[in-house]
Amino acid sequence: MRSFQYHNPTRIIYGEGEYKNIGKEVAGFGSKVLLVTGKSSLKRSGYFDQVVSSLREAGCRVSVLEGVEPNPRLELCLKGAELCRRERIEVIAAVGGGSVLDTAKTIAVAALDTGDIWDFFLCKRKITGALPLVTMVTMAATGSEFNTNAVINNEQTGQKYAIHSEHIFPKVSILDPLLSLSLPADQTAYGAVDILSHIIEGYQTAPGKAPLSDRIAEAAMKETMLWARRALDAPQSKEARGNLLWCSSVALGGWTWNGWGPTTFHAHTIEHEISAATNCAHGAGLAVVLPAVMRFHSRNNAAKLAQLAQRVFGVTRYWNDTAEALALRGVNGFKRWLASIGCPVTLGELGVEETQIPEYARKIALNPEAGELDAAMAEEILRFAVG
Amino acid sequence: MRSFQYHNPTRIIYGEGEYKNIGKEVAGFGSKVLLVTGKSSLKRSGYFDQVVSSLREAGCRVSVLEGVEPNPRLELCLKGAELCRRERIEVIAAVGGGSVLDTAKTIAVAALDTGDIWDFFLCKRKITGALPLVTMVTMAATGSEFNTNAVINNEQTGQKYAIHSEHIFPKVSILDPLLSLSLPADQTAYGAVDILSHIIEGYQTAPGKAPLSDRIAEAAMKETMLWARRALDAPQSKEARGNLLWCSSVALGGWTWNGWGPTTFHAHTIEHEISAATNCAHGAGLAVVLPAVMRFHSRNNAAKLAQLAQRVFGVTRYWNDTAEALALRGVNGFKRWLASIGCPVTLGELGVEETQIPEYARKIALNPEAGELDAAMAEEILRFAVG
Repeated sequence: MRSFQYHNPTRIIYGEGEYKNIGKEVAGFGSKVLLVTGKSSLKRSGYFDQVVSSLREAGCRVSVLEGVEPNPRLELCLKGAELCRRERIEVIAAVGGGSVLDTAKTIAVAALDTGDIWDFFLCKRKITGALPLVTMVTMAATGSEFNTNAVINNEQTGQKYAIHSEHIFPKVSILDPLLSLSLPADQTAYGAVDILSHIIEGYQTAPGKAPLSDRIAEAAMKETMLWARRALDAPQSKEARGNLLWCSSVALGGWTWNGWGPTTFHAHTIEHEISAATNCAHGAGLAVVLPAVMRFHSRNNAAKLAQLAQRVFGVTRYWNDTAEALALRGVNGFKRWLASIGCPVTLGELGVEETQIPEYARKIALNPEAGELDAAMAEEILRFAVG
Repeated sequence: MRSFQYHNPTRIIYGEGEYKNIGKEVAGFGSKVLLVTGKSSLKRSGYFDQVVSSLREAGCRVSVLEGVEPNPRLELCLKGAELCRRERIEVIAAVGGGSVLDTAKTIAVAALDTGDIWDFFLCKRKITGALPLVTMVTMAATGSEFNTNAVINNEQTGQKYAIHSEHIFPKVSILDPLLSLSLPADQTAYGAVDILSHIIEGYQTAPGKAPLSDRIAEAAMKETMLWARRALDAPQSKEARGNLLWCSSVALGGWTWNGWGPTTFHAHTIEHEISAATNCAHGAGLAVVLPAVMRFHSRNNAAKLAQLAQRVFGVTRYWNDTAEALALRGVNGFKRWLASIGCPVTLGELGVEETQIPEYARKIALNPEAGELDAAMAEEILRFAVG
């Protein structure tokens, strides 16, 4: 195993009906609350009113920032930070999907900062503090409820970049399966792809041998695939929704990669450019890009992808199979599985033409997190996603 | 999945040579340090002097409490707490095995308490605070470096009981494979049994269906068995020692049981009585008692033990096998494996006579954590451990 540090202080509260306790949890960190939510689904389902009631019953004064969209925008974060300063907000409550949580995390940082917040996304400055954050996630996908990450779209520069800081670990995250029962099929599937990509990206590029982490990663992948199918077959299954929520937290909560050493997230870096330009759902973009990245790594990291194919995708090894052959059978099987749950698997389905690939590749290489992913590599990967 | 709360704020620092950084980590919590260690192995290996140097170089004033023995004693904890008050200790550094860590945890609580510390072990009072604790573990076994537990022997009352409190989560725990390279074969094996029992006890009694937790538990069991064998075959293997250390932390760090619902630890409760009386190593006692408890549960929880047998112990299912038959084949295979790594598997090997069973059973039922484990059940289980 490579050297590692593991630290994740977020308290997870899981259970049906736990949403009612959000007021009690938030009030532990302050009484002046900014509630951050999405567009309308929370109001339609009736949970918005119940969350506000719970907060008020716990003695909180609630300011509301609504209207967070998928691919969350920097402008709204700045507006939220301004609101925090004006209302002397002490704690932020985020109720929604990953976009809502990432917006709330960025607000939590921006509220205490007087400079240009985009500096943090460009890795120009280091985050030194944030308001306390309590989350309640309505969609199994980003795992933002259990980690240090936030991804934000800067609509002025056309950049979709991320921050990472221990200061934005949520203090408490409530996972309540009831809140994701009404999630539409496409978002359910896209969420599952996001979860799987969070595990596969590290797994397939890990330089270190860390067998316990491999197995925990495989555990989370197997259960994600199983419960995604079940949630699509039976959208009202609390068991399926609950298992998916927990898989999403574990997938990006730091349990799977200890000892792996430095990994790369090329599918995410590439996808962020595609969704920033096309506004496609993050999970839809990943369903197209991730198998292409896996095919790319099947050459230079065949043994690891062969292990993935055998242990997770159920590929059988014949005595004279090469690792690369196993790896490719795994990738092809995974791509068929993605199509079977209703995901796009080609760039064309996202409205990206083959002729645009070089332009995308150039932009991708400019991301400060791109690392070794230069334009040539990005182009090679994107060409795997054409057909 | 059943409702659950997960919270584990301990920072894990894993790596070869990380022991040198203990001073830096401890100094973050204060400069007046109590260093708690065992009898002599740390001095023999030369690490004691290096730890003290690291602490002093970081600007710490070091008081030392040495001589913690296996089955750690309350008396030494009281002496340590007295030392803390006299020397105005601000932070405790524990370097050793589980006994050292549990002693340090108890001192951390007792230093801030003016009442009878044994009240906490008898569940008469609730722990409300503790000094900060940094640990560096020299043996893969108890997982005390990554959890809220401490087990202490009250030599006056003959009781060996536990405390559980979030206040005794270590702030930082360093896992350095170099520190366990010289661990003798018997302690290596006993440590592995302790790790496995921490997982199996919950796994076999969990009332809730929590498939991701099952798989994470299975992952940790498989890797523990694999690396225990390797550490016995090649005691100087840093890879084997490191993997065992990480397995021991994960086994009792809260990752494996989320959603399982309330579980019982009867093997531990029974074993504590046996080691309190015979002073046998905790892991040796568990190797005798755990298979007996598994056999007991093979009746009322056959399906779960059959899953364990198939997924972890490699038992093959024939079409007309009952779950109980699979479960029992698993238990018998596990018992053979325990014997193969040099563990005792019968009460006689611990010096416990069959005629003493009723007396042990009566004492076991008095443990405040015994719950449903009454004298009759304890006796039935112990009789399974005779031959």
